[in-house]
Amino acid sequence: MRLFTNVLLVAAIGTSVFGADSLLEKAKSYGLEPIPGDIDELMSYINDKNDPISYPKIELGKKLYFDPRLSKSGIISCNTCHNLALGGVDGVSAAIGHKWTMNPHHLNSPTVYNSVFNQAQFWDGRSPHLADQAQGPIQADAEMAAPQELVVSRVVSIPQYVEEFKKAYGKNVKITFERIASVIGVFERTLVTPAPYDDFLNGNENALSAKQKEGLDLFMEKGCTACHNGIALGGTMQPFQVASQYKFISLGDFTGDEDGMVKTPTLRNIAESAPYFHNGGIWDLEEAIKEMGSVQLGIDISDKEAKSIALFLDSLTGRKPQIVYPVLPASTKKTPRPSAD
Amino acid sequence: MRLFTNVLLVAAIGTSVFGADSLLEKAKSYGLEPIPGDIDELMSYINDKNDPISYPKIELGKKLYFDPRLSKSGIISCNTCHNLALGGVDGVSAAIGHKWTMNPHHLNSPTVYNSVFNQAQFWDGRSPHLADQAQGPIQADAEMAAPQELVVSRVVSIPQYVEEFKKAYGKNVKITFERIASVIGVFERTLVTPAPYDDFLNGNENALSAKQKEGLDLFMEKGCTACHNGIALGGTMQPFQVASQYKFISLGDFTGDEDGMVKTPTLRNIAESAPYFHNGGIWDLEEAIKEMGSVQLGIDISDKEAKSIALFLDSLTGRKPQIVYPVLPASTKKTPRPSAD
Repeated sequence: MRLFTNVLLVAAIGTSVFGADSLLEKAKSYGLEPIPGDIDELMSYINDKNDPISYPKIELGKKLYFDPRLSKSGIISCNTCHNLALGGVDGVSAAIGHKWTMNPHHLNSPTVYNSVFNQAQFWDGRSPHLADQAQGPIQADAEMAAPQELVVSRVVSIPQYVEEFKKAYGKNVKITFERIASVIGVFERTLVTPAPYDDFLNGNENALSAKQKEGLDLFMEKGCTACHNGIALGGTMQPFQVASQYKFISLGDFTGDEDGMVKTPTLRNIAESAPYFHNGGIWDLEEAIKEMGSVQLGIDISDKEAKSIALFLDSLTGRKPQIVYPVLPASTKKTPRPSAD
Repeated sequence: MRLFTNVLLVAAIGTSVFGADSLLEKAKSYGLEPIPGDIDELMSYINDKNDPISYPKIELGKKLYFDPRLSKSGIISCNTCHNLALGGVDGVSAAIGHKWTMNPHHLNSPTVYNSVFNQAQFWDGRSPHLADQAQGPIQADAEMAAPQELVVSRVVSIPQYVEEFKKAYGKNVKITFERIASVIGVFERTLVTPAPYDDFLNGNENALSAKQKEGLDLFMEKGCTACHNGIALGGTMQPFQVASQYKFISLGDFTGDEDGMVKTPTLRNIAESAPYFHNGGIWDLEEAIKEMGSVQLGIDISDKEAKSIALFLDSLTGRKPQIVYPVLPASTKKTPRPSAD
């Protein structure tokens, strides 16, 4: 009854039932943080002293990110599974790679957008950062299936790539597999998507609708922020299956890391990145919210509550950086040929 | 000896051995035509009264061109095999599609760039224009494998796509499979790439180097323009295997159309679109030039001549339109799910 009264009140006066300040303070006290509006503060997150950001690196990293010649077959790029046109994902339950092979643990491709804010990469968190992460899928038999030497041979056979590495890292650069993955990581670090949610946390109280503010409050009250917190609203390792077994999806053979921990996915752009969970087992966001309540929190979330939280999650759909599709340098006689086998 | 003297002369005075006018006139007399520098004249080629060009159509067509949800699996788009980053091709000998299936006739993906200038589409020329052509690969089992109804269901399940169709075609638009393919065709018609070659034919005599001018003259003298003429330097149906059997590549089971005719590929961006021929059987451009001399013209082209012609063909590498990678509208609960089977 109280909620109903509040809803009427909101409809009547056109503003939130929450004082914006109090909801903002509450969100901060629950560990929610915006993508910084201040560019220097933002740079403190997306820069990395091990491979400092620069325009030549971003441009080169972008080219390599989109270049299918980094795969054995020549037709799979980073962007195939982490598609920047589709919320940074592939939109299928389990990644499909070389020779149409499904991910052996039936794992769903996480979004590359805002992955710089994750404290660990991969579902089992085995990788500390993007420069390391990018080495994995390129080599994995079920993904791009390219041995390190093949990747390096392809890149160094293309003079424009060599020139761009020199421009980015100096004329004595050694083009190693690790260097290639690292510059892809530089590009990926720029893929941040500020959203209405951030505008709200950064002080624009009108950035969220009244219903979204209600959803945000419910999101906190229900305990979602226990795992979905920080800038990423996720990205940290958390215990897998705390309260109960999954109801609707089968766990498969993936059990997280050796301690049974799993990386909490970011909720940013979640409305664009179905299907959900490590195995892509649920396609509907409200259903996913209810399942998480049951599995992780041991509570029942009603249809109405799930809808409210989903409305809030819509506010995490961010403004994407404008990406000019690259024109990649042509292969040469020396470029190792693709192989579909 | 005369050539050697000419080369010295060129080196000495820094201009062509050919009067630019005479080479230009000769090129025209051999049926070579530039991409028009005049925008109205250009529009007379790329517009189509059956589906007149407009910005909303181009933008919508671009989105659909890049949208892998037009395939059954959800992971193959038009751009997968006609990659705008890679000269409009996939860079493999035969296209690989749904379930990692090779093109059943081992046919190589032709470039989409400048395909508007082709008089026929597909290797066997069975399609008269791009709006028709785009219907083929979407449905083909070995390519995107999507039945027409599935494609239409996916598109109409996404409200933003419906809105964009209304914006492009009026509020009473019927979103049919043919309409979807046609608007993709509108986008494809814009993919023209003016090159130094065009600048030369349009009157800038310094747009080609002296060696490229020699190569152009040789290209004409050897008879290449018998098939490679017009704006596309190709794109018309020609007899297949005129003079002899292929030396280096196997013909496979592709024999052209019912009259043994095959679509001559465009030579535009040829330096970027290896491998060559209908079956992608040759990777090296100079080798391909020699093979064509032998097979189609019944002549021997020397290594030196092939190199000269290849230098000329470099002048056909064009300036690509800048493509902003689209942000595609998200799927909804109603969107039919992808299937990898």
